[in-house]
Amino acid sequence: MKMVEVAAGKTRIGWLGTGVMGRWMCEHCMNAGFQATVYNRTVSKTDPLRAKGARVAGSPREVAQDSDVVFSIVGFPADVREVILGPNGALSGLQAGGIVVDMTTSEPSLAKEIFEAARARGIHAVDAPVSGGDVGAREARLSIMIGGDAAAVKALDPLFRAMGKNISYMGPAGSGQHTKMVNQILIASNMVGVVEGLLYGYRAGLSLEAVIAAVGAGAAGSWSINNLGPRIIKRNFDPGFFVEHFIKDMGIALDEARRMGLSLPGLALANQLYLAVKAQGHARLGTHALALALERMNNVEMKPR
Amino acid sequence: MKMVEVAAGKTRIGWLGTGVMGRWMCEHCMNAGFQATVYNRTVSKTDPLRAKGARVAGSPREVAQDSDVVFSIVGFPADVREVILGPNGALSGLQAGGIVVDMTTSEPSLAKEIFEAARARGIHAVDAPVSGGDVGAREARLSIMIGGDAAAVKALDPLFRAMGKNISYMGPAGSGQHTKMVNQILIASNMVGVVEGLLYGYRAGLSLEAVIAAVGAGAAGSWSINNLGPRIIKRNFDPGFFVEHFIKDMGIALDEARRMGLSLPGLALANQLYLAVKAQGHARLGTHALALALERMNNVEMKPR
Repeated sequence: MKMVEVAAGKTRIGWLGTGVMGRWMCEHCMNAGFQATVYNRTVSKTDPLRAKGARVAGSPREVAQDSDVVFSIVGFPADVREVILGPNGALSGLQAGGIVVDMTTSEPSLAKEIFEAARARGIHAVDAPVSGGDVGAREARLSIMIGGDAAAVKALDPLFRAMGKNISYMGPAGSGQHTKMVNQILIASNMVGVVEGLLYGYRAGLSLEAVIAAVGAGAAGSWSINNLGPRIIKRNFDPGFFVEHFIKDMGIALDEARRMGLSLPGLALANQLYLAVKAQGHARLGTHALALALERMNNVEMKPR
Repeated sequence: MKMVEVAAGKTRIGWLGTGVMGRWMCEHCMNAGFQATVYNRTVSKTDPLRAKGARVAGSPREVAQDSDVVFSIVGFPADVREVILGPNGALSGLQAGGIVVDMTTSEPSLAKEIFEAARARGIHAVDAPVSGGDVGAREARLSIMIGGDAAAVKALDPLFRAMGKNISYMGPAGSGQHTKMVNQILIASNMVGVVEGLLYGYRAGLSLEAVIAAVGAGAAGSWSINNLGPRIIKRNFDPGFFVEHFIKDMGIALDEARRMGLSLPGLALANQLYLAVKAQGHARLGTHALALALERMNNVEMKPR
């Protein structure tokens, strides 16, 4: 199957979804010498990229008609389906040999469906969800977990290297999404432990700053306790990563696990607790707002002291 | 309240419990210039210390009669009670001004009881559980979490520094134990996430080594995924830290939480899953043997591939 050559100054990229993540990721590719055409549902969010020289198109299809490689990073699997597989989606506009790269955290099964639909048109499809959040995107320090054909993934290397640091090829279509699901499964139960540990320490009368210093460097240490723990203590629940997106991710992981015949009780519990966070109106706070739900459940508030 | 002076070459220490942890901790104190008298229920376990010049006594009381500062690190809270508060316990043999230091992971409420009983005899009591396991003990790299009166804790500094690196004074009697409970609460839910994440990745067909490399350095990273994950993949379930001791610790944390009026659903779930590990006959494996219980529950085995 033929494939476009990927090289700075030559390959035209397209970008679907220029929000808090995509805006920076696309900009890094442009800075690396790739000309870009972009699309976003809310057009005003394309302004910063337009100011840097990107062309703005009116649909994913129009983006694809002017691109060799089209990236997407949008909200939910339904959005991925629309911007790639829909009647005005990227696959309808790309030439044979083109590459479509979905970087949304989405369903592994949808990644496989896109891969098959693309292949039927002579197009390469890669799933490449990321971790590292808006800060990782801005600083080009994302972790990228990649599934798809090895040749296409290898060709994309200069583009991935413009956006991220820890770039992992994980296997065939869907493997990037599956790896991201593992990432979210690890975070889900760990966040439950982080919040419960802090609540216990608070009720026991300990200084939570001192607790984190005492336990965070040893066997109980994790990125979450050391990075989100201090934010919880300071009552700063700004996202980081939105509760509503994390609930989406856990839902995908639970669906996939059910399909694989796997019972994951820790993930199921975390998911239920996060649904309580959302029920309490905190869907647009960061994942560490799990503390608010466990506080309310326990009728306690970890007031600074 | 008077207090013994703590200085190498002068202060006599006693050591109750010379197992996989205590044996090394006592030896480090001896290497730092403190003369030691030791006791262990199974006398043969005192042999290595005897060979280094320790005196072996027949009871905790006899140890205390020849010591200024008595350390204990034994199995369960009932053992702590016996060797410190019992009729032949350390408190019955120490002079006024002496210090008793329990380094077992034990009940915060028992630590407070010991503190009060000691004070009634003019004796100082400190709770100082550790983390870092037998390797941390051997290499004098333990984390030590300390509760008790600040003056006694300060006096003990040269002894703690002989055994550990991250030495944290956490507050009044029981605070060391409470901090260790936070440590165990963090580990409990995180281990559930680690095992569920690996199981998901295995069933999704991913290379688990590649998964750990892809996710272990980012927001999903933790000591457990990076240190115990590889052991799970290699099917090496040697302890580390015994399942049966971890179950003891979770039981203490759940009891204390109940007493404080705290509902901790993640810890409760982890505790139940670890009871299944024990039910399957794995009480003397390491905590990462949680993988075996979730594998059996799911009728899957993560065979190396």
